[in-house]
Amino acid sequence: MAKEKKFVESITSRDEDFAQWYTDVVREAKLCDYSSVKGCLNYLPNGYAIWEKIQQDLDRRFKETGVENVYLPVLIPENLLKKESDHIEGFAPEVAWVTQGGGEELQEKMCIRPTSETLFCDLWARSVQSYRDLPKVWNQWNSVLRWEKTTRPFLRSREFLWQEGHTIHATYEEAEERTLLMLKVYQDFVRDSLAIPYVSGPKTESEKFAGAQDTYTVEALMHDGQALQSATSHFFGSGFPDAFNIKYSDKNNELHSVYETSWGISTRIIGAIIMVHGDDSGLVLPPRIAPVQTRVIPIAQHKEGVLDKARELTDQLKKAGYSVKIDDSEKSPGWKFSEQEMLGIPTRIEIGPKDIEQGQVVVVRRDTREKIVVSLDEIETKLGEILETIQKDMYERAKNFLDAHIDTAVTMEEMKEKFSENRGFIKAMWCGSEECEDAIKYESGGASSRCICQGEDAVSDHCIYCGKPAKHMVYFGKAY
Amino acid sequence: MAKEKKFVESITSRDEDFAQWYTDVVREAKLCDYSSVKGCLNYLPNGYAIWEKIQQDLDRRFKETGVENVYLPVLIPENLLKKESDHIEGFAPEVAWVTQGGGEELQEKMCIRPTSETLFCDLWARSVQSYRDLPKVWNQWNSVLRWEKTTRPFLRSREFLWQEGHTIHATYEEAEERTLLMLKVYQDFVRDSLAIPYVSGPKTESEKFAGAQDTYTVEALMHDGQALQSATSHFFGSGFPDAFNIKYSDKNNELHSVYETSWGISTRIIGAIIMVHGDDSGLVLPPRIAPVQTRVIPIAQHKEGVLDKARELTDQLKKAGYSVKIDDSEKSPGWKFSEQEMLGIPTRIEIGPKDIEQGQVVVVRRDTREKIVVSLDEIETKLGEILETIQKDMYERAKNFLDAHIDTAVTMEEMKEKFSENRGFIKAMWCGSEECEDAIKYESGGASSRCICQGEDAVSDHCIYCGKPAKHMVYFGKAY
Repeated sequence: MAKEKKFVESITSRDEDFAQWYTDVVREAKLCDYSSVKGCLNYLPNGYAIWEKIQQDLDRRFKETGVENVYLPVLIPENLLKKESDHIEGFAPEVAWVTQGGGEELQEKMCIRPTSETLFCDLWARSVQSYRDLPKVWNQWNSVLRWEKTTRPFLRSREFLWQEGHTIHATYEEAEERTLLMLKVYQDFVRDSLAIPYVSGPKTESEKFAGAQDTYTVEALMHDGQALQSATSHFFGSGFPDAFNIKYSDKNNELHSVYETSWGISTRIIGAIIMVHGDDSGLVLPPRIAPVQTRVIPIAQHKEGVLDKARELTDQLKKAGYSVKIDDSEKSPGWKFSEQEMLGIPTRIEIGPKDIEQGQVVVVRRDTREKIVVSLDEIETKLGEILETIQKDMYERAKNFLDAHIDTAVTMEEMKEKFSENRGFIKAMWCGSEECEDAIKYESGGASSRCICQGEDAVSDHCIYCGKPAKHMVYFGKAY
Repeated sequence: MAKEKKFVESITSRDEDFAQWYTDVVREAKLCDYSSVKGCLNYLPNGYAIWEKIQQDLDRRFKETGVENVYLPVLIPENLLKKESDHIEGFAPEVAWVTQGGGEELQEKMCIRPTSETLFCDLWARSVQSYRDLPKVWNQWNSVLRWEKTTRPFLRSREFLWQEGHTIHATYEEAEERTLLMLKVYQDFVRDSLAIPYVSGPKTESEKFAGAQDTYTVEALMHDGQALQSATSHFFGSGFPDAFNIKYSDKNNELHSVYETSWGISTRIIGAIIMVHGDDSGLVLPPRIAPVQTRVIPIAQHKEGVLDKARELTDQLKKAGYSVKIDDSEKSPGWKFSEQEMLGIPTRIEIGPKDIEQGQVVVVRRDTREKIVVSLDEIETKLGEILETIQKDMYERAKNFLDAHIDTAVTMEEMKEKFSENRGFIKAMWCGSEECEDAIKYESGGASSRCICQGEDAVSDHCIYCGKPAKHMVYFGKAY
C-alpha cells in the first residue's frame, strides 16, 4: 500500500505551507518546470493542455464579439518603444535588448516585446486612412518577455504566454464600450469556465497600465487569502494613437483621432486555477477547462472481460463527445486513483468484475470524492450531469470562500487587525491621493489597492488614512 | 462599372510577371505586410486565419499519432546552442543575440531561437532517466528567428511562424518510424487538405538539416515551375542527444542512448497555397483550409425581401456547419464578386428577387467560375458536394501540372536545355559527390537537388555530371 500513497505524500499540506504546496503540485502534476534559461519556464504537456483549453474557450468568446486574430513581430525597435512617454518609462527597465544580428552589431537595438501596443499603433499609422478602415478589433496569442528578478511557476517569469487584444475605434464611446465588453468577456470566462469568483472594477491611477487612461481588472482570491490580478482591459483614449499619428478622415474628409483599447489574460490564470481549487491531493480542474474530463480505471483488470469492457466504455464515452482516457497500465488501482487525483481530472470511472455483473460503474468526483453508482445504460447522460454539478459546486465553494473573505474597515487600526487575522479583501474609503494609497500599503503590511468598488454602499465618508473626504471605496488586498 | 473591375486591375497578370503577381495578391487579399521591424512580417487577419485553419487541421493529425504540445523558451543561452557542433555551425551566423536585459549587460549572451533542438535536449537531459520516461513525442507552435538578408511575404522573413515537433525514443527503429510517420502526416495534409501534389524523399547530404542524420522533405511545384520545400522530417540518430548526455536505464538498469527526431512546417506553406492555386483574379483557397467557405451576395438587395432571405440563408448554412459570411454592404454586386474572388473564398452564393421567386440560388465556383443553379431545398447538401468537388478538382489540376513538369535528363546538355524551356523537376542520376551536386547546380543555372527518388526506375546508370557509376536518381529543380 505504500506505493499507493506516494503521490499524496510527495506534496506538502496546503494549510501547512501554501507556497510549498503550490510548488509541489506544479511539480507532481508535471505542469511546468524551470528551464536552463534563467527566469523562463518550460510549459510541459499537462500544463500546456490546460492553456490550450483556455485558448479555445476564450478565442471562441472573442470571435463572437468580432475579434480577428493576427501576429505581429517579436521585436520592437527602440525608437518605436519610445514614442509614448509613459509607456517607455513603464517598460524600458524590464526589457531584453537584441544588439547583434546575423553576425553584426545592429545600428538600432531592438527589444523583445514586453507588450505590443507600439507595434499595433505603428501598423495602423501606415494602414488606417478613412472611417471605412475602422474599427480594428485585433488579437494575438503569443509570448512576451519582461526581465523579472524572481520566478514562480505561472505567476511570475521572464517569458510568459498570453493573448493581447488591441483595438482602435472612430469614437471615444465605441472604444470605451469595447473596453467594458472585453472586461465582461473575461468576467464570464473566469466565472463560468474556470469556476472562479472575483471582484472587479477600475484600477487606481498608480495601478494602471503604463500609458492607459483607465484600466479595469478582474481580481480573484487565492485559497491563502491573497489576491491575483487575473485579466485586465485598458482604455487609452486617443493619447497613445495620437503619439503615433493615427488619424482617419470622416465622410466629409475631416481628420480625427482614433480611440484605443487593449486587453489581456496570461498563463498566470493557471496559477489561479491551482490556488483557488487545489487541495491536499493535488490539482482540481473545473470540468469545462479540464483537458481530460474522466479517466476510466479498470479494477482487477487481469480478470476476464474487465479490460475489454473498460475499453468499450472508453470508446463509447469518446463517441458521446467526452474527453476520456483509460489507464490500463500495470500499476495498482490505488496508484492510479492517486495519479488521477494529482492531475485534477474531474472524475474517474471505476469498473470491476462486480460492476460489470451488475451492469454499473462507480463514478468518483475529484472535488468531493463522492462515489456515485451509475447504471451502464445511463452513463452517457449521467456523466455529463455529474460534470456540470462539479462545475457548479466548485464555483459555489469558491464563491462562499470569497464572500467570507471580504470585510470592511473604517480605521487603519481596524484594517491592520483584520489583515493580521484573516487575509482577503478589505473594502475601505480612500481620498484619491497616491500618498495615502502608498501609506495604506506600507502600514497594512503590503495590501495594495486591487480595484475601485462600483455601485456598492460606502462604509464611511472619509479616507481611512488621512481622514479627508473620500473619493472612492477601494478593495485592498495583498496580492501575488 | 469601372469600380467593379478595380480588384482585378490592381494585380499583375500571373503569366506576365509571376513574382509581381504574387506580391500583388498578398497585398490585395490583405494576407500580410512588411512591418517597421526590418525583415519581419505582420500577419494580418486574412493571412492569419489561413494559418489558424492549418494549425487546427495539422494539430488534430498530430494528436491522433500521440503528439503532445508544449512550449519552451524563446531564448537559448550561447553554451546550449554550442553543444552540437554541426548545429551551431549551421545556425550561429544567422541568429539574433540578446546581450542586455533588465538594464544590465548579460554575463552570457542568448539568442532568439532559430529552432529548438537544443532546448528540448537540455530539458530531456534533466528529466529522462528510465525507459518509463520514453518516448517523448512533443510539439510546439511558435515563431523562430533567422537573420535573413531578403524578405518575401511568407517565403522568407527573419521571424516566421511554424510548428516544431521533437521526439526521443528508446530505439533507433522507433525513432526512424516516427520520422517517416510524420513525413506521411505532412504528405497527407499537403495532398488532402491543401490540394497540393508533391514529390517526396530523403535530402542529399548537403541539403540536410544541420546536425541531422537523415532529412526527408515534401517538395511542391509552384505555378512558375519553381519548387518549394513544404515540410521536413529529420532523423538525428543518437548524435544530438548524446551531445547533451541524454541516457536512459532499461529494465536491467543498463544505460542507453536515445534516438531523436524533429519535424516542422511553417507559414511558407501559405506561399505554396497562393502559388499553386492562385490565378489572375487573386487567391484560390482549397475548401478544406478556407477560413470562409462561401460568401452570400444578395442581388438587388434594396428590393423587398432580398436581404431578409439572404440573411436567413446565411443563418441556415451556418447552422448546417458551414463557414459562411454574408456581404450585405452597400457596394455593388460586381465589386463584391471581385472581392470574394480576390480573397479566394471557394464559392459565392448569389441570391436575387428572381431566384427567390423560383426557390433557388446560384452557386459560383471560385476555381472554375462555373455557375450552378441549386434549389433552396437542397442547398445544405449540394453546397457540401460542390465544395468537395472543388477540393478534388483543384488537386487534379495541380497534379496534372506537376506531372507535366517532371522530366528526365541523361546528359547535362539535355538538363540545361530542358530547364531553359520548361521549369519543373528533372530526374537525373547522381554519383553521390557534393562536387557533382554543386556543379550541376552551377551549370543548370541554379537547379538544386530537391530530394532523392525512391522506388523509381533509374533513367541511366551513370552520374549526369561526372559519368561515374550513379548512386541515386535525384529530383533537381530551381527552388524558392
